[in-house]
Amino acid sequence: MKYEKNFYQIKSNSEIFEKIVEEKKVIGYYNLVNQDTSEILTFSKTVTKKNIVVVGIGGSSLGTYAINSFLRNKSNTKKLHFLESTDPLELKKRLSYISDINDALFIIISKSGTTIETISVFKYLHSLVKIDKSNCVCITENDSKLNSYAKTNDIKTFEIPKDVGGRFSVFSPVGLLPLSIMGIDIKKLLDGCKEVNNSFFEKEEYFDSIFEKARFMVENKNRFNINVIFSYSSLLEGFNKWYIQLWGESLGKVNINGTRQALTPIGLIGPVDQHSFLQLIMEGVRDKTVTFIKVEDFEEETVIPDISIPHLEELDYVNNIKFKDLINMQADSTIQAVQDIGNIPTDVITIEKVDEFNIGKLMYSYQLLTSIVGSFMQIDTYNQPGVEEGKIILKNKFRNEDMK
Amino acid sequence: MKYEKNFYQIKSNSEIFEKIVEEKKVIGYYNLVNQDTSEILTFSKTVTKKNIVVVGIGGSSLGTYAINSFLRNKSNTKKLHFLESTDPLELKKRLSYISDINDALFIIISKSGTTIETISVFKYLHSLVKIDKSNCVCITENDSKLNSYAKTNDIKTFEIPKDVGGRFSVFSPVGLLPLSIMGIDIKKLLDGCKEVNNSFFEKEEYFDSIFEKARFMVENKNRFNINVIFSYSSLLEGFNKWYIQLWGESLGKVNINGTRQALTPIGLIGPVDQHSFLQLIMEGVRDKTVTFIKVEDFEEETVIPDISIPHLEELDYVNNIKFKDLINMQADSTIQAVQDIGNIPTDVITIEKVDEFNIGKLMYSYQLLTSIVGSFMQIDTYNQPGVEEGKIILKNKFRNEDMK
Repeated sequence: MKYEKNFYQIKSNSEIFEKIVEEKKVIGYYNLVNQDTSEILTFSKTVTKKNIVVVGIGGSSLGTYAINSFLRNKSNTKKLHFLESTDPLELKKRLSYISDINDALFIIISKSGTTIETISVFKYLHSLVKIDKSNCVCITENDSKLNSYAKTNDIKTFEIPKDVGGRFSVFSPVGLLPLSIMGIDIKKLLDGCKEVNNSFFEKEEYFDSIFEKARFMVENKNRFNINVIFSYSSLLEGFNKWYIQLWGESLGKVNINGTRQALTPIGLIGPVDQHSFLQLIMEGVRDKTVTFIKVEDFEEETVIPDISIPHLEELDYVNNIKFKDLINMQADSTIQAVQDIGNIPTDVITIEKVDEFNIGKLMYSYQLLTSIVGSFMQIDTYNQPGVEEGKIILKNKFRNEDMK
Repeated sequence: MKYEKNFYQIKSNSEIFEKIVEEKKVIGYYNLVNQDTSEILTFSKTVTKKNIVVVGIGGSSLGTYAINSFLRNKSNTKKLHFLESTDPLELKKRLSYISDINDALFIIISKSGTTIETISVFKYLHSLVKIDKSNCVCITENDSKLNSYAKTNDIKTFEIPKDVGGRFSVFSPVGLLPLSIMGIDIKKLLDGCKEVNNSFFEKEEYFDSIFEKARFMVENKNRFNINVIFSYSSLLEGFNKWYIQLWGESLGKVNINGTRQALTPIGLIGPVDQHSFLQLIMEGVRDKTVTFIKVEDFEEETVIPDISIPHLEELDYVNNIKFKDLINMQADSTIQAVQDIGNIPTDVITIEKVDEFNIGKLMYSYQLLTSIVGSFMQIDTYNQPGVEEGKIILKNKFRNEDMK
């Protein structure tokens, strides 16, 4: 009888760092910070269509949505649309927002090339408008069937590298192409990523903070199994959704010892969710960590006017305050109230301003954090075996329909 | 020395039912099903403005948003807007959607009458447009300062009854007035509520199912501390948000024995979140219950056309399928995959169709469920003491600013 086992244990930071350095050789997202973007930039400049329609689901659209909605004040006059759901009423609504379907560029994004939602919508689009190289681009793996389709029809393609997973693909052409077409400065976006990446791998500023956070979350994962992000800007709603996918799909895994792991992500928006979820944070079971995200300067100067509304004079203390300062005072008050409780782990990320560089830093640092937490947990951060079962059942349903 | 204590224990269903019957006498939302809506209907018919602008946050807007977005195909040509956040960029964007600010009715909703976000936005509106009885309605408690303001200015008011909490107020004028103006049949909405209400209190169909679910969740609250709603329609995104407020703010409490309670709500949308959170449900820690919500018939007949895309022929099995059937096949496949696992508690709610009656039933049954879970937990379901601390800190910040 032979029995050998190295039971799961939390490794030292330096062991994990070595693992990440090794991982960097085979996991592609780390290396996107140094990619050559000239082809994307050149192509973007040629796009004259007014409506840019991303057809893709999950990792093929969430990151683009997150950045575009955060930077909506920075984009040009083109309109970005997302077709992702198979919900017929939602699909109809989204299509109705496209002012002229003949003045639209369709960007079909599917890593595998055969995503059922994406191809179903793509088929439907064929019935509405002639699809050809003049109004279509495909972003997919180089050897996918979608790539073959594009090549056959002389349709421009951009590659999703095989070693870049969908939820880590926002800084590949998946995100960069549509964002660049929308007028977002993708070079600055990558500069933000690069700053965090270099700082981390050179063990500078971001190294300690990311490791400390990852370690805390892993060491306390049974006690604090829910990780809330409380973003004090509606601009970060898309970021929250992207975080939920990144965190949930990467970390919800069985580890090498066969133990189920789970840190459950939740995204909140302040001040709106002060009127919703906050009560649960304040008085509920202590099973949550809370990360607040603030925007230091919205660079939007609207002032609450010096108007006294009869009978409501008690609120005149907000007069002459800028909305951008009010929301940050609300954030600071909530942060203090949560911290005063004393046994809710919190941290605060402050973004300097609403620009490409800052959102690049934020998102890249969350990708790194996810990788490190995954590495501590001894799981495969980059696969998603749990979603295959439903796909197989669906295919069998279709097969049974056929046989009727 | 005297010491008496009745430690918390889960009561019998009949004891809880008696408590709910007693509660019905003092908690107002139960009785909204029988309200007289003639004043709302009469007023709604007089509204000729094209833009209907709800100024309110949390319970003052979430329910209306949930129903209006679910029933968007049923509403008239008016446009419903929500101003709630103090985020300056979000506020600007929402205002830009109002095609003509002079062709707008502003519905100011605040139970207390002094909600800081609502009054700050209201002040700002004063600087953009003349506010008077021709373009403003207030919905508030009868003795609030907002009510006094309205009376002074001859502005029409509707009452939020004192015994109806914000997150339970969607079927009061808070929701019914804007929805009625938008052309939603509020009588049918209340008919849906009434059906569930009567069935429950007469111990018919809904009695057992609601009690069984509440009891399961309470008895297993430590093991399954996260309650996911997985809605297979983008139309239910607003409902999910409403559920999160209702559940989180009602149940995140300290109970009569000083024990923190928490059932954490999460809202997902299918099929989009199959590409996000599903992995975590399938392979993560077994700390979640999952309630699937399906729409039996979307009554939208768009068919995936019989088009074979070269190289993508393997997906031709979706040809000639209606999108409404595809999404439900996806739902059923995911449900089966989750249920096959065997140790994830699931239930499935199927809404017959997208109409007032069905959304009324769904939302009212969730209000009842929340009340019963709260009653089992021996908490006050209807207060929210945990959110006061942040408000006090904020006021002090303003006071300190003043003194500078």
